[in-house]
Order: sequence, then structure tokens, then C-alpha cells
Amino acid sequence: MSMPWWQGPCRQPDTAAAEAARQRQTVLTKPSGSLGDLEVLAIQLAALQGTPRPLLQRTAIAVFAGDHGVVEEGVSAYPQSVTAEMVRNFVRGGAAISVLARQLDAALEVINLGTVTPLEALPGVIDLPLGRGTANFTLTPAMTHDQCQAALQAGRDAVLRACAGGADLFIGGEMGIGNTTAASALASVLLDTSPLALAGPGTGLDADGVARKVAVIQRALLRHGDTLQDPYELLRRLGGFELAALTGAYLACAQQGLPTLVDGFICSVAALCAQHLQPDTRDWLLFAHCGAEPGHAAVLLALGGEPLLDLGLRLGEGSGAALAVPLLQLSCRLHSEMATFAEASVSSRAHD
Amino acid sequence: MSMPWWQGPCRQPDTAAAEAARQRQTVLTKPSGSLGDLEVLAIQLAALQGTPRPLLQRTAIAVFAGDHGVVEEGVSAYPQSVTAEMVRNFVRGGAAISVLARQLDAALEVINLGTVTPLEALPGVIDLPLGRGTANFTLTPAMTHDQCQAALQAGRDAVLRACAGGADLFIGGEMGIGNTTAASALASVLLDTSPLALAGPGTGLDADGVARKVAVIQRALLRHGDTLQDPYELLRRLGGFELAALTGAYLACAQQGLPTLVDGFICSVAALCAQHLQPDTRDWLLFAHCGAEPGHAAVLLALGGEPLLDLGLRLGEGSGAALAVPLLQLSCRLHSEMATFAEASVSSRAHD
Repeated sequence: MSMPWWQGPCRQPDTAAAEAARQRQTVLTKPSGSLGDLEVLAIQLAALQGTPRPLLQRTAIAVFAGDHGVVEEGVSAYPQSVTAEMVRNFVRGGAAISVLARQLDAALEVINLGTVTPLEALPGVIDLPLGRGTANFTLTPAMTHDQCQAALQAGRDAVLRACAGGADLFIGGEMGIGNTTAASALASVLLDTSPLALAGPGTGLDADGVARKVAVIQRALLRHGDTLQDPYELLRRLGGFELAALTGAYLACAQQGLPTLVDGFICSVAALCAQHLQPDTRDWLLFAHCGAEPGHAAVLLALGGEPLLDLGLRLGEGSGAALAVPLLQLSCRLHSEMATFAEASVSSRAHD
Repeated sequence: MSMPWWQGPCRQPDTAAAEAARQRQTVLTKPSGSLGDLEVLAIQLAALQGTPRPLLQRTAIAVFAGDHGVVEEGVSAYPQSVTAEMVRNFVRGGAAISVLARQLDAALEVINLGTVTPLEALPGVIDLPLGRGTANFTLTPAMTHDQCQAALQAGRDAVLRACAGGADLFIGGEMGIGNTTAASALASVLLDTSPLALAGPGTGLDADGVARKVAVIQRALLRHGDTLQDPYELLRRLGGFELAALTGAYLACAQQGLPTLVDGFICSVAALCAQHLQPDTRDWLLFAHCGAEPGHAAVLLALGGEPLLDLGLRLGEGSGAALAVPLLQLSCRLHSEMATFAEASVSSRAHD
């Protein structure tokens, strides 16, 4: 194939705006550095928005749903019907991400990429079915080329809609029973680490369940072998519709210059896939939290991501990222609205 | 003296409301426990508000300012005039806590308990001067009995005003050049730990400055000796106006049944003082963050407090607590507004 869209160039962060923001931080009425990580965040957002005084006013959340063929191997505590049931719950307002989007006044899109249980037409759901779930990746690639490329494109399209709607922050979320198994398999290859160290309880497996999950991943790694060295093939063979869509979304955010706040384990693995497909993607990723799934910390470390929250979250849906939005907004407000020493006639340090 | 007000009984959290909230958490449409610390928080707030569905709508912030005689020993990176200058900055809207209160739509009170630099009458400042700063506690008790009791009462009065105004959450903040020295001295006694392990750079001391601060505290501990075993005497001799006011505020919150979100190192030390004066105070304390000052983690550990944020903050003013308010509000919204499995027709676990 010709060069795929995701290998196109990313926007460059604005280093002059970052430097101006860094200078401003030193003259605000507070001991230098005393706002800790929020100072770093404001400077980073200045670089991404290309202005010394960044502001976050419009968050766009897109939740991608899809089912996983590997669930037939017994890797989830919940029945597969839950994926479709939760899609309904998202748009009816009862899910965690629905509540958070409402409270944050964020736009919420739900994109159904293919559930095993058929879904009726639902107001608020963008229906892009790529199949009744992926194939069981212990036997065959999870996705065909067409499916994987359509899923990547679905993520990109969500970002393009967010940009068209004036969003200044993008959050991707996911729903897919079995997707911690797929994500652990992807992470295992990308981090060159045993699935034993990465796979965890997901929505609530017991120790036997986790052991089964590890064995399933090990079987898949053996079956697909060296084909997994190519990041696109890896994503296609062991990923899932929502994982590929998230990957496409992060790639598109970097191309469009839209900062994105990465949610939990699944999203972080998709971000790592995006970075492997196009390394410059990394600049546009902000990390919301370190979740409870054991592989999450390792993936964040590989990405060099410093998460804002550590609350033992393991829900997905984009919920952890949504919870961190107020911190981003407040870091911008503090940076932009605090008085300088000169403006407020406050003495600066005695010992400088 | 007769029994002081702060030894009066505290309100009891509502265990029935907590149990109802705990039950509700198990039937919301998410894997059980997947909202991590936010589930614990919602259950705790249910107990404190006495309802299975808590809600936080009105935050009251009170910032107490006062100067410290011990500053003449050279324990701060900033000149003492900054305390008064920052009081002006608070009410003119340029300080971090001013920006945060505005963004959170929280009521902000500033109470001046005695700065070294005289302050003109300022709209928005409650002026309760107890002296031109405290006395140098390396030589003499920081406060007289009258001063200490008036400061405790000033904190209580701020809480009573917050209650009268319909607040459902109280945040105390502080401003006082030199107050990490006083707080480290108090913590050193209450934790029976060397000041060497607790004192830190504060607003920005270098290593020599920290060593000087430690020596100053050690001298004070020797001078006051066994009198420090009584928590009230400890507070009076080594504390400060704002530290005593915060202590009084936490005691009053527990008596009035108003949940309070504790800010950084100074506030946590005041909370520890409050707990020593009346152990039942502890139930009403929520902990916003673990800050950069080295003693903070030790004080939180002694209080059994699990902070929500860990962002390297060391500003004070109540700013870290204000930054955590959205997490508290969102934990309540999630708890109260998410659908149950039955309401949303979502299947629960396969393996239960």
C-alpha cells in the first residue's frame, strides 16, 4: 500500500510559547515551583496550544465500543453481552462517563464498531459496525486489513469531528469485554515483557482467571510469531476495533494539533501503538492517571508519561481522563489569571 | 479554666447512610471497586452528610494569615512583609486561592490575625489582629493564652459562618511567612520525631537554610521542654495565629458536622493538633494531597489520611484542597447519578 495516513507528519509543539509560559511561571505570586506538576502542565499546554496563556474550554469525549473474539477463551468476568448493554447505558446517561461528561459539560460521542449482540438504532450512537466482534486471536488475526484500517479511520474521524466542533481537548474512551486481554497482548510485544507481568484481573478475574488469560496470550504470541514485530500487523492481529480506533484517534490528534488526555490501561496501550506507528505522536499525549491494572504503570513508563491521578481506577470508558479534566482546566486558569509579583506589589525572594 | 469549647462532643458520622451507600456502590453499572478511591470517598461523604446520596454544592474557603516571631532567626526565603502583601493579593483576586475560589464558585474569606506590616482596611478582609505577629518561640511562648484562645475561636467562628451560609464543605488555608518552621516544630513533638526528618525547604530555603531551621526548632524544643506534652500548651508555645485558627476550625467542623478538606503540610499539622485536642475530630477530615514538604507524608501517616492528589504542591493558601474539590464533587455525582444494573438492564458478573 502507499504511505498510510498515519505516517503523515505531526504538528510541532510551539517552543516559543512554552518558553514564554515558563518565564511567566517564575513571576507569578507564589514560590517558584510551588504548584508542582500543574506548572509543568500549564507550560506543556502552552506549547500545544501555541499561546503563552493556554485555556481549556471545550472537551470532546469519544467512546469506542467493540467485542473481542478471544472472549470465547474465558478471559472475562462479565458476559460479552455487556458491551452492547453498556453502549445503551452510555447514551441513556447512566454510565460513569455519561455522568462525567454531563458534569464537565463535555461533548460525548459513542461509536459502535461492532458488538456481538446486535444493537437497535440508538439516538446518540454512531453505528460503524466492522463485524460482530473481532476474531479469536489465538486462532487467526483479530481483524482483517479492511477492518483494522476502518477502525483506525473511525478514530481519526472522531478527532476530525472534535476539531470541527471547536474542541481544545480530546478524550478517547473504550468499552469492550475482553479488551484487557488484547491490550495485555499488545503491551507484552511492545514492551518485550512476559504477559505474566502485565495481565491482571481486568473487570474482576480471580487468580485462576488471570492465569488462563496469561496462557491465552502466550498461545497467541506463539501463533503469530515474528509477524508481530511490525506495529501495524501487531495491532491488526492482537488488537481490537476500539483499540485500533483509539490508536487512530491519537495519531490524528497529533496530526491535527489537538491535545489529548489518555485514560487507563487500554488507552495507554493504544497510545503506545500510536507512538510505534508515528513517534511524534507522543508530544500530544497527556496522561490522566495510573490505574489498578498491573500493566498500566509499565506502559506509562515506556511512554515517559507522568500521570496526574493515582486513585486505583480500573473502569475505562474514558472515565479516568474525564476525572482529570478539572486539573488541566485549573492549571490553565492559575497560569493565566494569577497576578505577577509586580502587578500585585508582592516582594519576591530575599535570597535570590 | 472550665472545659474549653474544643473538648465538647463531635457529631457522629451516620453509619446507616454509609452502609446504604456501600450497598449502592455494588449495584452501579461498573465492575465493583472499579472507581477505586472515589467509591470510598462517596461512602465517606454519605456518612458525613447523613444521606445515601451525598452532594457537594457549596464550598467555603477561609484563609487565615498571621506572622511569626521566629522569622527573626532567618528561617524563610521570603521577607516577612510578604504575609501582608499576600493578604492584599488574596482579596484583589491575584493569588492562586483567589483564582481557584473563582473557578470553583466557592466563597472565599480572608482573616487577618496579625501581620508584622500593618494593613490598611481592605474590603473582603476580616481584621482580627491578635498582635504584630507571634513572639519568637526560641525565646518565649509564641502566643499568650488570650492570643491562642482568640485564634482558636477565630477558626471556630469562620466555620460557624460557613455553616450559616449553607456550606457543605469547608477548606482552611493559611498564609504566614515562617509557618513551615512552626508546623515542623509542632509535628516534631506530636510525632516524637527529630525535626531533621520533618523540616524542609518551605518556600525555597537552600540546604544551609534548612539546617538553620532545624537548629532553631531544636533550640525551641529544649527551651520549652516538658510543657510541650500538653497539646494546647504545645500549640500556644510553638504554633502561630493561623495554625491555632486552623486547629479551631477543624475542631468546630467536627462539632458542627461539616466535612473539611485538609490542604498541605501546615493544615495537616493543625489537623493533627485538633486530633490531639479532641480525637473524634478525625472523622470529619478529608485529605486533599500529599505535598512536597518532607514532613507532610509523616503527618498524613499519623492521621491515617489517604490523600487524593500527589502533585508536588507546596504553596499553601488552601490551594491543594481547592484543587481536589472537583474530585469530591464528581465522586458524589457518579455515586448518585449512575444507573444500577437493574435500571440499565446491564448484566452483572458471570462468575458471581
